[in-house]
Amino acid sequence: GEGPVIPMSKWMKEVWEFAKEDTDRVTFSLKVGLACLLVSLLILIRAPYQVFGGSIIWSILTVAIMFEYTVGATFNRGFNRALGSLLAGIFAVVVIQVAMSSGHIAEPYVIGLSIFLIGSITSFMKLWPSLVPYEYGFRVILFTYCLIIVSGYRMGNPIRTAMDRLYSIAIGAIVAVLVNVLIFPIWAGEQLHKELVKHFNSVADSLEECVKKYVSDDGSEYPEFAKTVMDDFQDEPAYKKCRATLNSSAKIDSLANSAKWEPPHGRFMQMFYPWTEYVKVGAVLRHCAYEVMALHGCLHSEIQAPYNLRCTFRAEILDATDQAAELLRSLAKGINNMKHNLQSGLLKRVHSSTERLQRSIDMHSYLLTSTMNVDCPPSKPPPSKLSNALSFNAVGAETESCKKTADGINNGAPLQAEYSYHETMKKQQRRLHSWPSREVDDFDDDMNAGEVIPRMRALESTAALSLATFTSLLIEFVARLDHLVEAVDGLAKLAKFKQEIAC
Amino acid sequence: GEGPVIPMSKWMKEVWEFAKEDTDRVTFSLKVGLACLLVSLLILIRAPYQVFGGSIIWSILTVAIMFEYTVGATFNRGFNRALGSLLAGIFAVVVIQVAMSSGHIAEPYVIGLSIFLIGSITSFMKLWPSLVPYEYGFRVILFTYCLIIVSGYRMGNPIRTAMDRLYSIAIGAIVAVLVNVLIFPIWAGEQLHKELVKHFNSVADSLEECVKKYVSDDGSEYPEFAKTVMDDFQDEPAYKKCRATLNSSAKIDSLANSAKWEPPHGRFMQMFYPWTEYVKVGAVLRHCAYEVMALHGCLHSEIQAPYNLRCTFRAEILDATDQAAELLRSLAKGINNMKHNLQSGLLKRVHSSTERLQRSIDMHSYLLTSTMNVDCPPSKPPPSKLSNALSFNAVGAETESCKKTADGINNGAPLQAEYSYHETMKKQQRRLHSWPSREVDDFDDDMNAGEVIPRMRALESTAALSLATFTSLLIEFVARLDHLVEAVDGLAKLAKFKQEIAC
Repeated sequence: GEGPVIPMSKWMKEVWEFAKEDTDRVTFSLKVGLACLLVSLLILIRAPYQVFGGSIIWSILTVAIMFEYTVGATFNRGFNRALGSLLAGIFAVVVIQVAMSSGHIAEPYVIGLSIFLIGSITSFMKLWPSLVPYEYGFRVILFTYCLIIVSGYRMGNPIRTAMDRLYSIAIGAIVAVLVNVLIFPIWAGEQLHKELVKHFNSVADSLEECVKKYVSDDGSEYPEFAKTVMDDFQDEPAYKKCRATLNSSAKIDSLANSAKWEPPHGRFMQMFYPWTEYVKVGAVLRHCAYEVMALHGCLHSEIQAPYNLRCTFRAEILDATDQAAELLRSLAKGINNMKHNLQSGLLKRVHSSTERLQRSIDMHSYLLTSTMNVDCPPSKPPPSKLSNALSFNAVGAETESCKKTADGINNGAPLQAEYSYHETMKKQQRRLHSWPSREVDDFDDDMNAGEVIPRMRALESTAALSLATFTSLLIEFVARLDHLVEAVDGLAKLAKFKQEIAC
Repeated sequence: GEGPVIPMSKWMKEVWEFAKEDTDRVTFSLKVGLACLLVSLLILIRAPYQVFGGSIIWSILTVAIMFEYTVGATFNRGFNRALGSLLAGIFAVVVIQVAMSSGHIAEPYVIGLSIFLIGSITSFMKLWPSLVPYEYGFRVILFTYCLIIVSGYRMGNPIRTAMDRLYSIAIGAIVAVLVNVLIFPIWAGEQLHKELVKHFNSVADSLEECVKKYVSDDGSEYPEFAKTVMDDFQDEPAYKKCRATLNSSAKIDSLANSAKWEPPHGRFMQMFYPWTEYVKVGAVLRHCAYEVMALHGCLHSEIQAPYNLRCTFRAEILDATDQAAELLRSLAKGINNMKHNLQSGLLKRVHSSTERLQRSIDMHSYLLTSTMNVDCPPSKPPPSKLSNALSFNAVGAETESCKKTADGINNGAPLQAEYSYHETMKKQQRRLHSWPSREVDDFDDDMNAGEVIPRMRALESTAALSLATFTSLLIEFVARLDHLVEAVDGLAKLAKFKQEIAC
């Protein structure tokens, strides 16, 4: 009997971890238990039961249905419930008056027709795009209306029934709101604030992860994209988080929607705190994350620039990345502490390191071009860059690389040791041949034999240009950081973050 | 009094359009009305009411809460409701036995404690990631348990109460399911199928839209990205749809989740139809859409390749795009008709036109490089391409462009008429100067005056390389189409689509 014991303890440990990861989860659970208990006491104790009778059980239903994770969501749901019940009550009273005045025989037909109409109309309205957030309210209208009108018809005195039920619902709602707000409240605003900061950090992380992998990878052990596109990239935890950021728009929207219902609290004491600005900043951040996805696509593309080439620009790429990631983290920190740092210093550094990358790409763009230009090596190779490249590689000689071009190998890229160079190229060519992975052998019918060599060259050139793509995407990412800084500035202004001159 | 009349008629028209757009919406609304009416009849008519008493109103609540848009979602919710009620009933009976045997004084304490525990435990469990889809079930357990135990305690004969209530819930559930399934059923599977096909088409549309804009735009009237990032790009309807595709993962997941609950129906008569494959194909398609987003980023980037340069590769870019879009549409059509076309012909054409683009970029990569290489024009300019470029441009002379390089202007790009060339460059430089849009004038502190000219050149070179980026992204898009074709093949196999040899 030891078999089930070990999974049990493992399972207990998992639950413990889950609870420890975010203690709000435990708080929430205990609060629901407490609210249910409080409302049950109303019935277990004799007095309230004698006043309200059987409809007191509606307060339990209300607590169970209305109690949401955050304060704002509870208020929102409570509003839906209250307004829905009120409207349903009004409709019911009106219809009952009409039905009663229409005579004994027509009465059930009037009631039946009204139920059909209310059911159809509320169901149609809740499909309307701008009314979708109030879906619950329409459901409440529907069933409250049916309940009031049917039990009123059967049990008589419909207004008394309706009022009793509204009172019990009100009691349930009050208990739910009081427990939710007064005992360790979980604010949607706070959650939204943390969520946004988390997204900034995860975009920064995944940018760094992706770029570091790009410049450090020797191309030997790529998992095939087809295999991994569906699973997660196991060794890239930050990428997963970034993808989560992309799918997070719904979560941010709903948190902002809930936060709007919350009264000023904690560090958000300002009236009409600009929660919608969070959604805007989130959208701009998502546009930055799209670039990270494209960079990641470049990293796992089947067409790759040779490792040597990537190494040549390593310092500049890493520098630009570090600066961009630092800017993101600094923005995140600023939001987190509700302080507004003018990021001019950091932004300047990001731009100047990106400019350095651009200039470096420009001065070495002969490295990115095809074997066509072999005959004329660049007239004046910029010395600073060359020495830079040499410092990276054990052996690097311009002459050697020129010799290599005869074999149809990418020219001009500074070499590592002879051996590792050949290794790399072998891997590289294997990868080139694997693209296009399907039907590659069937192409010969629409190109003559003379074109096969140019085709290989084309692939090599495209391979080299993939480095240009990677850097362009990185530069575009930096360009978008401007918009991000602007969006954060807007948030800071409206939310009245404390001004602070940093660096 | 004419003011409110016109909005009213406009509003009516909008509602009419909304209903006509998808008549299922009207069907659904009428079905909800019908189900409510049917279940109300049970109470309006005397007989059932006399059997079940007051608890018959629970059947109304069940219909209102259980009736969902699709058959699968209704089944799913019904399952949650049924299992939840059953479990709650069992718990309640057990606890009541325990409470009754624990004596008159301890009884309320046992009941109170049990309510607290059930409330806390179900709330905690529904936060557990793998149990989130059953959130509704846990809610049902909670309130059903509270209702049974409290009304049992107060009204006596708890088992009788529980059974009566379960019967009425069962009646409500049966009515909801019968109406939903028998009268114009709306199948989640069918919706999922259509949704996926729609996404294929919207990715194809937005790819074409984006590329056409890229090669046809003369760079004069870009809206600034910062202004438009938050609003939609008004003139790009397909882009909006593509972005919707990216945010659609939740919808596809929930439809697939519902579809699993549906019995074989319509054209999906196979047992265990592979609905999860739809989710997989959707994920691969989303990875293609990320590339379209990156292409779109390139289109609206502040750093742009000159129009002339873009024109040079216009034919190849458009050809590759057309082929890729056709492949996407053909896949969509295949899925839509549940026929499996071996796409080898189309795929071959996509690959060969992409290869042509690659080769063309390769042979003209000197156009993409900096002014460094000016002194040595390419040894053998490919004649076919040059004539091609000439046919696009009114005046184009290699010598003229070489002269221009002295002014630090991008070399080698075939020219339009002298006038329009200068115009374009002026616009181009304005745009180049606008980047980086912030703090651009403050850079001089970390670069000496001698570096200003190279910096301008760097921007020009990067501008030219942005064309390389665009084409690389397009090529990467095509490479991902392979995976998409594979994923669709997998779906076709498992779903037993009719084999068909096309083109």
